[in-house]
Amino acid sequence: MTGFVSFVGSGPGDPDLMTVKAVKRLKAAQAVLFDDLSAGPILEYAGPEADLVGVGKRAGRPSPKQNHVSKLLVEYAQSGANVVRLKSGDSGLFGRLEEELVALKEAGIPYEIIPGVPSAIAAAAAIGIPLTRRLTARRVQFVTGHDVKGELPSDLNMAALADAEATTVVFMGKRTFPLLVDALHRHGLSLSTPAIMAESVSTPDQSIVRSTIGGLASRLADEIGSNPALILYGPLAEFGDD
Amino acid sequence: MTGFVSFVGSGPGDPDLMTVKAVKRLKAAQAVLFDDLSAGPILEYAGPEADLVGVGKRAGRPSPKQNHVSKLLVEYAQSGANVVRLKSGDSGLFGRLEEELVALKEAGIPYEIIPGVPSAIAAAAAIGIPLTRRLTARRVQFVTGHDVKGELPSDLNMAALADAEATTVVFMGKRTFPLLVDALHRHGLSLSTPAIMAESVSTPDQSIVRSTIGGLASRLADEIGSNPALILYGPLAEFGDD
Repeated sequence: MTGFVSFVGSGPGDPDLMTVKAVKRLKAAQAVLFDDLSAGPILEYAGPEADLVGVGKRAGRPSPKQNHVSKLLVEYAQSGANVVRLKSGDSGLFGRLEEELVALKEAGIPYEIIPGVPSAIAAAAAIGIPLTRRLTARRVQFVTGHDVKGELPSDLNMAALADAEATTVVFMGKRTFPLLVDALHRHGLSLSTPAIMAESVSTPDQSIVRSTIGGLASRLADEIGSNPALILYGPLAEFGDD
Repeated sequence: MTGFVSFVGSGPGDPDLMTVKAVKRLKAAQAVLFDDLSAGPILEYAGPEADLVGVGKRAGRPSPKQNHVSKLLVEYAQSGANVVRLKSGDSGLFGRLEEELVALKEAGIPYEIIPGVPSAIAAAAAIGIPLTRRLTARRVQFVTGHDVKGELPSDLNMAALADAEATTVVFMGKRTFPLLVDALHRHGLSLSTPAIMAESVSTPDQSIVRSTIGGLASRLADEIGSNPALILYGPLAEFGDD
């Protein structure tokens, strides 16, 4: 008897920003394997009988080995359970989804992927800006600011990231942002390019800081803080509610 | 007496892929201004008393002037109504949100933006692929394939789009894809780069075609069809369910 795995993007944190389908799957789950950032009030949708298993890996802290998570996922499914694998935002964006998909395929376990509202999309909505503009800003890009060791990836396409017309969102990039800005500046992007740092979007801890890439780099060189953050830069970071 | 406008991203089309908050706002709306692609079963969430106003502009068809939509939005809000401005996917991604935001600001009308599941995110989930990969594919980019005249924008950053390591999703780009592929190829991207065309994602008409950028360009040079489509290319387009 084989179970079934639903990869569920939980959205940015506010339970009301989950999809209707995500709520349905959580309610029907016999086991929920969740990351830290997808926890909190969202888990209250799970039934009282469900196993809730934290497999979190917050940036900068020691984290369960990814293959351990895949193994656990396979074991729960092989016990016949309806398993929800809950990931913050959308599973397909910097969610290390591929490794878990491969493990399920190898074990012959059926699964589905339920998309979620990515944190970058929720951040733009919270800030009050669009991510694209009709006559300029025709390209939006999402990039990770750290590699497996927590360092700035050495092979980023800096010319693409230094494009003054694009909207760029850096995921997990607080610690490496000063280095990234050095590189962007060398590739011609002005230090006065508007930038916004958004932390804990859609939760009670939400914080939005408006600055420039140079200003944010200075700030983050001094202090990083522990909240997960997105950094958005480009011409549209100037638009907004205030 | 001034009303209130909720910009609501409806997600890709399946009502179950709306957020909980989007459903709440639709149920409470006195007027719903919707685009073609955000219509269908999603509108059934609106109450029987709500005014449902289509302001669609499908690619390639004559469409209401954008300033007409903004004017209508302001007029409904000034009548004191709770207005939902429903846009397919997420409003901030190629949704021409900015023009409507500016009109509301000028008229002093309060509003909120409720993020939705972007169609590109839903497409990747439907296909069964992640959009990023840990050691490669660290960048994902969304770009529009047509300008205000329906042509390939002349100022696209082709070097960024021809990056063989990135995952790229082209919105509204079926008609111009052969031209785009010519340009990508001139910038060094192989014609055998894996590509997927996803039409009407998450609806009963969903269609997924796996090919290469060269293969899709040939196909689309012959026939375009009328369904809205996303085209995704890059190394991860090879991964998947079959």
